Amino acid sequence: MISVKEAKDIVINSVQEFGVEEVPFLKSVGRILKEDIVADRDFPPFNRVSMDGICINFNQFKEEQRAFKIEGIQAAGSEQITLQNPNNCIEVMTGAVLPKNANTVIRYEDVSIKEGIATINVDEIKEQQNIHKKGKDGKAGAVLIQKNKIISAAEIGVLATVGKSKVKVAKQPKVMIVSTGDELVGVEEIPLEHQIRRSNVFTLVSLLERIQISSETAHITDDKPILKSKIESYLQEYDVLLFSGAVSKGKFDYLPAVFEELGVEKLFHKVAQRPGKPFFYGKTSVCNIFGFPGNPISTFVNCLAYFYPWYYKSVGLETKEETAILTKDVVFKPGLEYFLQVKLSDKYGHLSATPITGNGSGDLASLVHADAFIHLPNDKTVFKTGENYPIIRYR
Amino acid sequence: MISVKEAKDIVINSVQEFGVEEVPFLKSVGRILKEDIVADRDFPPFNRVSMDGICINFNQFKEEQRAFKIEGIQAAGSEQITLQNPNNCIEVMTGAVLPKNANTVIRYEDVSIKEGIATINVDEIKEQQNIHKKGKDGKAGAVLIQKNKIISAAEIGVLATVGKSKVKVAKQPKVMIVSTGDELVGVEEIPLEHQIRRSNVFTLVSLLERIQISSETAHITDDKPILKSKIESYLQEYDVLLFSGAVSKGKFDYLPAVFEELGVEKLFHKVAQRPGKPFFYGKTSVCNIFGFPGNPISTFVNCLAYFYPWYYKSVGLETKEETAILTKDVVFKPGLEYFLQVKLSDKYGHLSATPITGNGSGDLASLVHADAFIHLPNDKTVFKTGENYPIIRYR
Repeated sequence: MISVKEAKDIVINSVQEFGVEEVPFLKSVGRILKEDIVADRDFPPFNRVSMDGICINFNQFKEEQRAFKIEGIQAAGSEQITLQNPNNCIEVMTGAVLPKNANTVIRYEDVSIKEGIATINVDEIKEQQNIHKKGKDGKAGAVLIQKNKIISAAEIGVLATVGKSKVKVAKQPKVMIVSTGDELVGVEEIPLEHQIRRSNVFTLVSLLERIQISSETAHITDDKPILKSKIESYLQEYDVLLFSGAVSKGKFDYLPAVFEELGVEKLFHKVAQRPGKPFFYGKTSVCNIFGFPGNPISTFVNCLAYFYPWYYKSVGLETKEETAILTKDVVFKPGLEYFLQVKLSDKYGHLSATPITGNGSGDLASLVHADAFIHLPNDKTVFKTGENYPIIRYR
Repeated sequence: MISVKEAKDIVINSVQEFGVEEVPFLKSVGRILKEDIVADRDFPPFNRVSMDGICINFNQFKEEQRAFKIEGIQAAGSEQITLQNPNNCIEVMTGAVLPKNANTVIRYEDVSIKEGIATINVDEIKEQQNIHKKGKDGKAGAVLIQKNKIISAAEIGVLATVGKSKVKVAKQPKVMIVSTGDELVGVEEIPLEHQIRRSNVFTLVSLLERIQISSETAHITDDKPILKSKIESYLQEYDVLLFSGAVSKGKFDYLPAVFEELGVEKLFHKVAQRPGKPFFYGKTSVCNIFGFPGNPISTFVNCLAYFYPWYYKSVGLETKEETAILTKDVVFKPGLEYFLQVKLSDKYGHLSATPITGNGSGDLASLVHADAFIHLPNDKTVFKTGENYPIIRYR
């Protein structure tokens, strides 16, 4: 059996390119930017007044002048006007162009205005103060956002400012999520004694939505010819197939055989981990196949531990590993890498992980009380309070 | 001027109730659950086989029997069958009901099967092993998810399992986002020398989408009668109005006067913070009004620091403060609380915050390089490397 690292390396070395598409900028949040965003002009585009007040020529102040006749108003959004007489001032508003021949802004708080005369009430003012200089944040042509970044609200503001009403982002893969298992009935149905409702496909749909991938779902009964014919067409239509169940040793776990018959190249089957051990991963020339084990936690953690990194690598996103500190000793003897559910909390900038005791890989409800999985290695069996290990968050 | 804490207390004591609505469970991700989710039956609903293999009556194993004739197969999704002869075994599949009269499951890996006889190859097996006992994760009627929780993929799985195809969630507020400022033109337009494109409304739209609130936007010119008439109708139609700009001391900053004329109760105007000082907050009996200062970073940070907590409190969500550790000394003298952009990174479970030097509150591009704001108090001017302070993440 291969290790989690070996499995992950195989998965992320089997990435696909989905291409690039252009979307309206407001629809691009959460998507991966695929073009450098360049300042279309200086940023700010003019010497921008950054406080409401008056503007003057600083030389006059230096020569002890304190009272200035108000010559006009420069509003935001108006064409630049000119300070005609250097002994005068102009009222200026935040966001306005600094008037010609003026070089210093004094905010209203430091001025009293009476009968058209503004008197400066402070002794210390600096030449050029309260002016956001043209080009200070970036010159025309400067790269403001580099490609391969996830677009968030911060980037949306920049896109709007430079006029990128449409923006190039990575296309998302076309994904089909398939459940198998004759014990499964629909969410709206009342299960018989020996049945349960489908749930893994919906957790997968939600985990994919979290990274802006919309997906389709299907359920196929445990019938080999039906499985084979449906999967054959899915392999043509989709970039990715995610399966939940039917990959282990059961009599009706037809998937590995079906994949082989359909020419899917098996890259591995089984990883030395718990939960999620009987994980199948394969591909064709056009499709990647993730066969997750059917237990709820197994499907959940393998989607996070393998599908997410595969997707991020495919769209060119670099990710960083995050770690957290155990708040309790953990003993785990099976000689497998262990993905343990933990509740995260923060104190003094330290991220703590408290193990949540579930009842094994079938215990879906235990996920509700946790925030992440902590990934414990298999080279020891006792993990001490205070030690830190990688985590995978899911909220 | 009031402090950030005073301002925040005023805001969160002015929460609104938006009521509850029922939505399809798959559309509920990111929403706030407004009902306890209860197990409709035991969880698991039967003694569930958790490994593919054979099941036996443990007494026979204890009495040294190792070879068992295979009497039948119990598939997942089939009605429970019965082990007729205690000397025999039944093949069982993961997810199946444990057959009657059997009480122990041995996985295929530990068994060899030849001519209809399964021989157990291990010496240690435990009574009841590989069985996920009926009701172990929760008894019928147990609360599996408590209300007032954000719904994530983990909760979706539980909702599906208990048959909650529709679920009660907090209604979202009806929000209008208004920009003012005659210097602003549309994203698709080419601005004249003295103009810039609208961006704050779009960052606000994105920040609200991040918490699943869809909003409408409008732009009103700096004309007092027009402002007044439009705002008058918005005050009737929306739960919340967010403004960007026109709340400071400028000649055309009509909003505070317009609000007063329209009967908006001013709860505060100005907070001792940078950026975002001239923040106006008020309300009517049916509407909350957030008047954010027009500088991009001011609008951005105030939405995170005030609107978010107000929303969370309104829908009944408890939030936790997060802190991070400064990686560089920071000096800040103005005697105001300081929201400083920081880049977060994680090492050994410690969250570090590296200040990003921007060019003041107009420098939208600097947000791209940061992940969060760190909130520095105003009771000192030097903040040392290694000290930790609250942060507000925005990615």
